[in-house]
Amino acid sequence: MNLKSKLAGIESGGVFVVILNPKDAADIGVHSTDRVKVSRNGREAVCIVDVSKSWISKGSLGIYREVEKALSIKAGDVVDVAAADAPRSMEFITKKMNGARLNKQEMFAIVKDTVERKLSDVELTAFVSSLHFNGMSMDETVALSTSMAETGKTLGIKEKIILDKHNIGGVPGDKTSMLVVPIIAAAGYKIPKTSSRAITSPAGTSDRVECLCPVDLSVEEILNTVEKTNGCLAWGGAVDLAPADDMFIQVEYPLAIDPLLLPSVMSKKKAVGATHVVIDMPTGRGSKLKTIGAAHALAKDFIELGKNMGIIVNCVITFGEQPIGYGVGPALEAREALDAISNVSSPPDLVEKAVDLAGALLELAGERNGKELAYKLLKSGSAERKLRQIIGSQGGDPKIKTNDIEVGSHIAEIRSKTDGMIWWIANHDIVKIAREAGAPKDKGAGILFRKKIGDAVKKGDVVMEVYAENERKLHNAIALAESLNPVGVYARPQDRTLIEKVPDGEDHKKLFILER
Amino acid sequence: MNLKSKLAGIESGGVFVVILNPKDAADIGVHSTDRVKVSRNGREAVCIVDVSKSWISKGSLGIYREVEKALSIKAGDVVDVAAADAPRSMEFITKKMNGARLNKQEMFAIVKDTVERKLSDVELTAFVSSLHFNGMSMDETVALSTSMAETGKTLGIKEKIILDKHNIGGVPGDKTSMLVVPIIAAAGYKIPKTSSRAITSPAGTSDRVECLCPVDLSVEEILNTVEKTNGCLAWGGAVDLAPADDMFIQVEYPLAIDPLLLPSVMSKKKAVGATHVVIDMPTGRGSKLKTIGAAHALAKDFIELGKNMGIIVNCVITFGEQPIGYGVGPALEAREALDAISNVSSPPDLVEKAVDLAGALLELAGERNGKELAYKLLKSGSAERKLRQIIGSQGGDPKIKTNDIEVGSHIAEIRSKTDGMIWWIANHDIVKIAREAGAPKDKGAGILFRKKIGDAVKKGDVVMEVYAENERKLHNAIALAESLNPVGVYARPQDRTLIEKVPDGEDHKKLFILER
Repeated sequence: MNLKSKLAGIESGGVFVVILNPKDAADIGVHSTDRVKVSRNGREAVCIVDVSKSWISKGSLGIYREVEKALSIKAGDVVDVAAADAPRSMEFITKKMNGARLNKQEMFAIVKDTVERKLSDVELTAFVSSLHFNGMSMDETVALSTSMAETGKTLGIKEKIILDKHNIGGVPGDKTSMLVVPIIAAAGYKIPKTSSRAITSPAGTSDRVECLCPVDLSVEEILNTVEKTNGCLAWGGAVDLAPADDMFIQVEYPLAIDPLLLPSVMSKKKAVGATHVVIDMPTGRGSKLKTIGAAHALAKDFIELGKNMGIIVNCVITFGEQPIGYGVGPALEAREALDAISNVSSPPDLVEKAVDLAGALLELAGERNGKELAYKLLKSGSAERKLRQIIGSQGGDPKIKTNDIEVGSHIAEIRSKTDGMIWWIANHDIVKIAREAGAPKDKGAGILFRKKIGDAVKKGDVVMEVYAENERKLHNAIALAESLNPVGVYARPQDRTLIEKVPDGEDHKKLFILER
Repeated sequence: MNLKSKLAGIESGGVFVVILNPKDAADIGVHSTDRVKVSRNGREAVCIVDVSKSWISKGSLGIYREVEKALSIKAGDVVDVAAADAPRSMEFITKKMNGARLNKQEMFAIVKDTVERKLSDVELTAFVSSLHFNGMSMDETVALSTSMAETGKTLGIKEKIILDKHNIGGVPGDKTSMLVVPIIAAAGYKIPKTSSRAITSPAGTSDRVECLCPVDLSVEEILNTVEKTNGCLAWGGAVDLAPADDMFIQVEYPLAIDPLLLPSVMSKKKAVGATHVVIDMPTGRGSKLKTIGAAHALAKDFIELGKNMGIIVNCVITFGEQPIGYGVGPALEAREALDAISNVSSPPDLVEKAVDLAGALLELAGERNGKELAYKLLKSGSAERKLRQIIGSQGGDPKIKTNDIEVGSHIAEIRSKTDGMIWWIANHDIVKIAREAGAPKDKGAGILFRKKIGDAVKKGDVVMEVYAENERKLHNAIALAESLNPVGVYARPQDRTLIEKVPDGEDHKKLFILER
């Protein structure tokens, strides 16, 4: 059927969408969410159908920017529109929804159509939901992970050993990568580290590193930095490494589910060409993995998936019940990392964790006594020199000092209301307070702890300071801290035996779900 | 944050959506799929966030038509934009995804937000998927069904007994309602029947009835017709009865799942005020219910759900392995129904089914020997007079004759290639061929059977005729019929022992799913 183009002028968000009048839709024999093939001058695009009576009159076709560009359509151009089938991958999504297993070809088809934006939100959500509800076999996880790597760019670094690390997250203030990458690079191994920005946390590694130097590098700039310095601390979001991940996250994020945890991590590692990877798995109350048992189960999957993808994986279960170090928020964390790598200060858990992880990586690479070597590289100043080299190569000032990193000038102290010891710090509440103060957008906002678990406090002692870039946000963050009570101070645990009251009538059949 | 409005000019499809520049989104602290509250002149709307760098510059806000109308925004108007929480119902969707049970208040919140278009496609898909994967308890099904009825209009007919029927579908050519409604109305009972149009079939009841009279009635026109004639045969799509159903179908249809079968049917029955309902459940190979066991399980659920909603339900399991009567396609079926109710012809299965269903309804209403009464009303001409009265009241010609209903003038005969008996007719293939011929859009297109299961045929006998409104569609339908071989003719079943070859490597764990 020939229809006259009417340009919407705006994007649909990547997916090819056209808008039909309901009468034309009926004539073509399609409904909303069906597909049509739109052709003009020998070029064609398969588009998802939307229907509008008020905006599109009979005989017209509403065209979003993506379709306009792909077919070089101008307002008023006549295009041919015919019914088209859903992409083949929709058949495989249905198969997965019905509980069947998918093979490599089928997984690849789904990932390819995802990256090429051929699936609607409804279809993509159905796929991610079916993984959430029906789970995946190891073969399927391998197929999905490799498909995600194969449908994007790869770094292609020519080196026998390429190291990498990943933190499954959940613990605020975890700036360990900023120490591990320079240590590994200083030891002479390649570590092309890409990280994410915060989505729901007060700071991602990229937000922290951005207080020292630019992180928004192209693939060429990443390769150049790794060539010169052995390492990098780049943002992974701008480079096209395993791009399907971002599209799956668009669905996972609003639903707070994460069925693609393993493929998400391992596809990125495959895309950077990592041969040996250490996965940091913070475990404990208030982190993503609540128990050592859960951590072991996940570790087993990571290791087996690695084997199937040709990547040697070690997992390190770490204490995740409180923030790492003292600072939470981009600038406060960047300061702390810089001080720690310069041996100006040494927050014990941060340093310990960094040399543990770096040591594990070095031993994977064949070194003996990896932890000792890592500690030596840190204490000798080699790691600091390496970090400054990376900063310089990424376009920052290699001579940057802690005081150059600005933190919020609006500061409030939160004091203990009783004598006792700190028994717990609620990670989730710390995240909320730091975000209320402005993090991660306000880089100087966040929380600086003065005391951590096990520290004795007197009534009136400062437990933490809240930093903000303006008075209003500081006020809101303090109000939130007052209501949440994020730090538990008691003389002894037995002074507080009641954990929680469960209201009557809860009928709860909970599946095992890893919190995002 | 104050932003300047830029009007998109088009609809997002009911949902409130605004488009932010990524920088403003970061400043407000929201991501794509998050919510913002948009305020102007004391009016406000919570909108879902979309992000575009190219179309929206920093300081501007892209406004879809729905938001433009709701807040009376003009291009260039300055509006206030602030982060907002997801609606409370999102919490309940998450709860359901995690396997918990929802109570009435929680279900109601989800349905209300669905009807008010406050949920994104991703969120709505997650809800429907979670029902598909996790199932529903009876309490949840009751809560969902009543919520769907309560969030729409109701007919409010003041009568002690209001009858209704529903066919769960799957069998082509099922024009039984066109006989049942007049029989019941002729017996003096109210039967305000609303039906759907075809989505994936060659004809829905509304498509068939539309060959006799208009079906696109308002609530007032429905009430008026029922007042005058006791019955109606109206399209349910234009009236706001249980409107959430249409929104759930928007998700179910592209995914070919149907977890809301029970609530979808029973919410509509509640909305029309039905007190006694008969559910027709065609069962057998090629229909939605494959086995009598499955039909019994579903029947039990329908009956129990009815009890919980104050509706008395009977279920009738009917033979669903071949089309009902001889015609398939809107006009061919309207002709057949008119001939049958006028006693011009009497396709045995159509008449038998109609009096069985009408009889069951009459007995629910308290009549004895319902089937006999139904048969009498049909044979005496009462039912025909009642149908003509309904046709007149809905705006059609009450004197309409079979030949007034035009059928396609391009006709081809499909002949048997061998001697034998018809052992099976593949419903799915019949549907495909009739749709290829142009049904339901071309009302005159479809299939007219000359032989049905159990009939003896000689090589060369006409088994069916294909009708189309143009030569091209006829040609395509015949080609499809040749390749599908929709009718099985053999001397004896044992002449064909091979059913299907299963390829190696199928790893299939199929859940019970009712085909849509």
